[in-house]
Amino acid sequence: FVSTKMAQIGEYLLQAEDGLDQSEPLYKVPLSLYKENRERLVASLRANQGNGVVFHKGGSHPEFECTDGHRTPFRQESYFSWLFGVTEPDCHGAIDVATGKAILFVPKYPAEFAWWMGEIHPAEYFTKKYGVDETHFNDQIADVIGALAPQAIYVIHGQNTDSGSWTKPGEFPGIEKFNVDKTALYPLIVECRVVKTQKELDLLRYVNRITSRAHIKLMQNMRPGIGEHQCESSFLHECYHNGGCRHMSYSCIGASGASGAVLHYPYNSAAVKESSMCLFDMGGEYLCYGSDVTRTYPSNGKFTPEQREIYEAVEAAQAAVFRAIKPGVLYTDMHRLANRVMCEKLLAAGYIRGTIEDIMANNVAAIFQPHGLGHFLGLDVHDVGGYPKGTERPKEPGFSKLRIGRPLLENMFLTVEPGCYFIAALLEPAFKDERLAKFLVEEKIRKLMGFGGVRIEDDVIVTADGCENVTSVPTSVADVERVMAGGDWELKVTHYKNA
Amino acid sequence: FVSTKMAQIGEYLLQAEDGLDQSEPLYKVPLSLYKENRERLVASLRANQGNGVVFHKGGSHPEFECTDGHRTPFRQESYFSWLFGVTEPDCHGAIDVATGKAILFVPKYPAEFAWWMGEIHPAEYFTKKYGVDETHFNDQIADVIGALAPQAIYVIHGQNTDSGSWTKPGEFPGIEKFNVDKTALYPLIVECRVVKTQKELDLLRYVNRITSRAHIKLMQNMRPGIGEHQCESSFLHECYHNGGCRHMSYSCIGASGASGAVLHYPYNSAAVKESSMCLFDMGGEYLCYGSDVTRTYPSNGKFTPEQREIYEAVEAAQAAVFRAIKPGVLYTDMHRLANRVMCEKLLAAGYIRGTIEDIMANNVAAIFQPHGLGHFLGLDVHDVGGYPKGTERPKEPGFSKLRIGRPLLENMFLTVEPGCYFIAALLEPAFKDERLAKFLVEEKIRKLMGFGGVRIEDDVIVTADGCENVTSVPTSVADVERVMAGGDWELKVTHYKNA
Ligand SMILES: [Mn+2]
Ligand SMILES: [Mn+2]
Repeated sequence: FVSTKMAQIGEYLLQAEDGLDQSEPLYKVPLSLYKENRERLVASLRANQGNGVVFHKGGSHPEFECTDGHRTPFRQESYFSWLFGVTEPDCHGAIDVATGKAILFVPKYPAEFAWWMGEIHPAEYFTKKYGVDETHFNDQIADVIGALAPQAIYVIHGQNTDSGSWTKPGEFPGIEKFNVDKTALYPLIVECRVVKTQKELDLLRYVNRITSRAHIKLMQNMRPGIGEHQCESSFLHECYHNGGCRHMSYSCIGASGASGAVLHYPYNSAAVKESSMCLFDMGGEYLCYGSDVTRTYPSNGKFTPEQREIYEAVEAAQAAVFRAIKPGVLYTDMHRLANRVMCEKLLAAGYIRGTIEDIMANNVAAIFQPHGLGHFLGLDVHDVGGYPKGTERPKEPGFSKLRIGRPLLENMFLTVEPGCYFIAALLEPAFKDERLAKFLVEEKIRKLMGFGGVRIEDDVIVTADGCENVTSVPTSVADVERVMAGGDWELKVTHYKNA
Repeated sequence: FVSTKMAQIGEYLLQAEDGLDQSEPLYKVPLSLYKENRERLVASLRANQGNGVVFHKGGSHPEFECTDGHRTPFRQESYFSWLFGVTEPDCHGAIDVATGKAILFVPKYPAEFAWWMGEIHPAEYFTKKYGVDETHFNDQIADVIGALAPQAIYVIHGQNTDSGSWTKPGEFPGIEKFNVDKTALYPLIVECRVVKTQKELDLLRYVNRITSRAHIKLMQNMRPGIGEHQCESSFLHECYHNGGCRHMSYSCIGASGASGAVLHYPYNSAAVKESSMCLFDMGGEYLCYGSDVTRTYPSNGKFTPEQREIYEAVEAAQAAVFRAIKPGVLYTDMHRLANRVMCEKLLAAGYIRGTIEDIMANNVAAIFQPHGLGHFLGLDVHDVGGYPKGTERPKEPGFSKLRIGRPLLENMFLTVEPGCYFIAALLEPAFKDERLAKFLVEEKIRKLMGFGGVRIEDDVIVTADGCENVTSVPTSVADVERVMAGGDWELKVTHYKNA
């Protein structure tokens, strides 16, 4: 495997075409990114379905509870962002499958909007800003689509395989007069989102660069006594101030000590104790494209022998997966591989006992690692498409939480995030379970009940013959200790050839 | 008027009883704050209504669109926070009016919650944590309330006078078997929220201290070329890292140049130009209690003569209001006073012409200042109760946007935020309006069409004989220029005696 220095922000700018700028000196996203997305979707519809019009409604920006204020900036709905890149709320969009023509529909604001929210632009402004073919107002949707006489209106109607929630299919007054197809579009657009284009990957690399840099800063600033909330704040600041990421991909997890064993620890409110393991799961987002990175390290910058044992079990699991990912590999097998490597290490260190085959056959790993090895990543932090029609979620503990149950394809983008946690709610029942107890070295494990957990999470692109790790934060104990002691770290991407 | 040095953060801690800590070294909110809120409400119900049970449902934390993730941390619904101070989602609460007994109801989580979200606590944990009398699980609401045999269940049902949106009255399975009173509670709880207790005011002073400090930092770091987004990021970081404010009261407004004339400018994405006026309207929030502060200053730290003319017109308007606020004063009259003072200054500087009486009679001010002078502030940034039953919103421009249309009472907390903006959408029609055009010195005004605007916003407590300004950010041109040049600023509160 080889490492390559990451592009500088200036280089990103030089390469960019005329595009959307989130904030002046930062990454300009080319409008052709969205055009390519639409072209791929249209090609897929033509191949599978025939003509008609794709129709979708963008997100809106509701006020908080019953007040008249917004507590956070607007964030576009993900499918709409993927299709059009539009950053304003309350828009709609249509694509004529036969011609590929892209049409936006924007709200018609009252005059007062001009002094509350800014200039009221003519429709043509949006045509140019977003590189579409036409823009009309929202009250013209029925007329404009009617003039195309579509054989069907394709709307996005499907169930997210992680949340079980359903998308909101686009609608407009008068849609009932058309032949609305609720079944064809969803699986096709999901598959388009699953495999990223080079332009999407460039943007995702940029976001990972920002996120990596913020994680490095956290590492360098760590000291016992700091507040978890101060770490979160520093991360947010680095991502936004120096990277233009106004949003995070998800609410930050900043857990120290025992809280590291709470997988989605929401509070970030404790003071970090001397020698505690600190688990930071945080990732910036830029124009709706995200990142998801975790590092875990001791607050004082020096691993104890026990911390190192657990840490290196997780590190070895992640490294094994990096060396195995390539097109065709089933991610469920990667989850199993990570479990095996972690268990081999825990066995060698004396936390578990038995043969590795017995340990694997009894899924002992799930007592220490109850979540999935990873998930797709893109416009959603748990991106769509992990279980396409016909694939089923496994039932066994741990595996049942895996968000990808399919063979990998080139240009998928996903997380590799093995973990090892000391969770009383899992360990105590296991100590009493006849089948499992015999594998557990209870005395040694009990000593680490307040330890928390370790998770190491990087984001990788599946390449033609392996993978590219676009996250660049110190991982080895030696690198972590060196950077925590003030050492430098050069950002890089790492290519694995696994063919 | 006198200024008093603001308490240090350490002093806040020393004064605090055993209370809720948002993050270890910061402000501990005493549980008695919420107990007092409940006691005041119960007293008000007894006086107005008789016995029964108050019932309300706390906020929940919905996932984003159809994904399974949270993009931002949970923020409690405001009435529920006022009543109980609870920071977890999906709870309910009841208060027995006869005895004052406070009862919480919390979700019963599945075992898996323990490793995703943290320890599953017994009911007694919440009783102690929030200082209530009893805690039960959500599935016991009907039984526990039934045992009290209430003559009525009072729920919060009313229309927010700013948004026009309705509250969600609390409900539970089986509520239809009770006598549900939807009318009595709303006006009483709103009135309780309108007049703050000393404990609420102490917390609000703390939040203002944090917010003031963050504004001072922005001022000190300002330089042409900086990104508006970088200013927002620095503000967020100062409030959270050093003040524990994980949330803001509202989405930050960071506008430079012409964008300063966009009252709710949402983008914060431009680079600040040399000599541009920068308008920052940003306020932190701590355990749901908020702040709302605006400052406007030139990017290079030196006011031009024109910038100074406009700025000092607004400053004078604000100062006049500080010297007039006291119990019994109608806020609509304060809006008019601010308008008059601003117009006198604009007249003296030659932007408008005519007699001040004609200018006021024709509401010329609303062309430059289309928003209201201020609003209540507390758990919502536009806090409830500005127009109690029987008071009507004025119809004239500007006045119609005023969120308080009632005489002031001691211990109300509100903003004083006059502004002066150069908004083409207001000025161009006015230049063509026979009635208004004669007051406008078009040539002089046109020179400032790209100027943007000035807003100066402080938060004040109405005292027995005047008001207390709890915001402490440089305001005078001399102070602003001095601090922007690196000068110090000592935090203080300012008391005005206006009796
Ligand atoms: Mn992840
Ligand atoms: Mn305000």
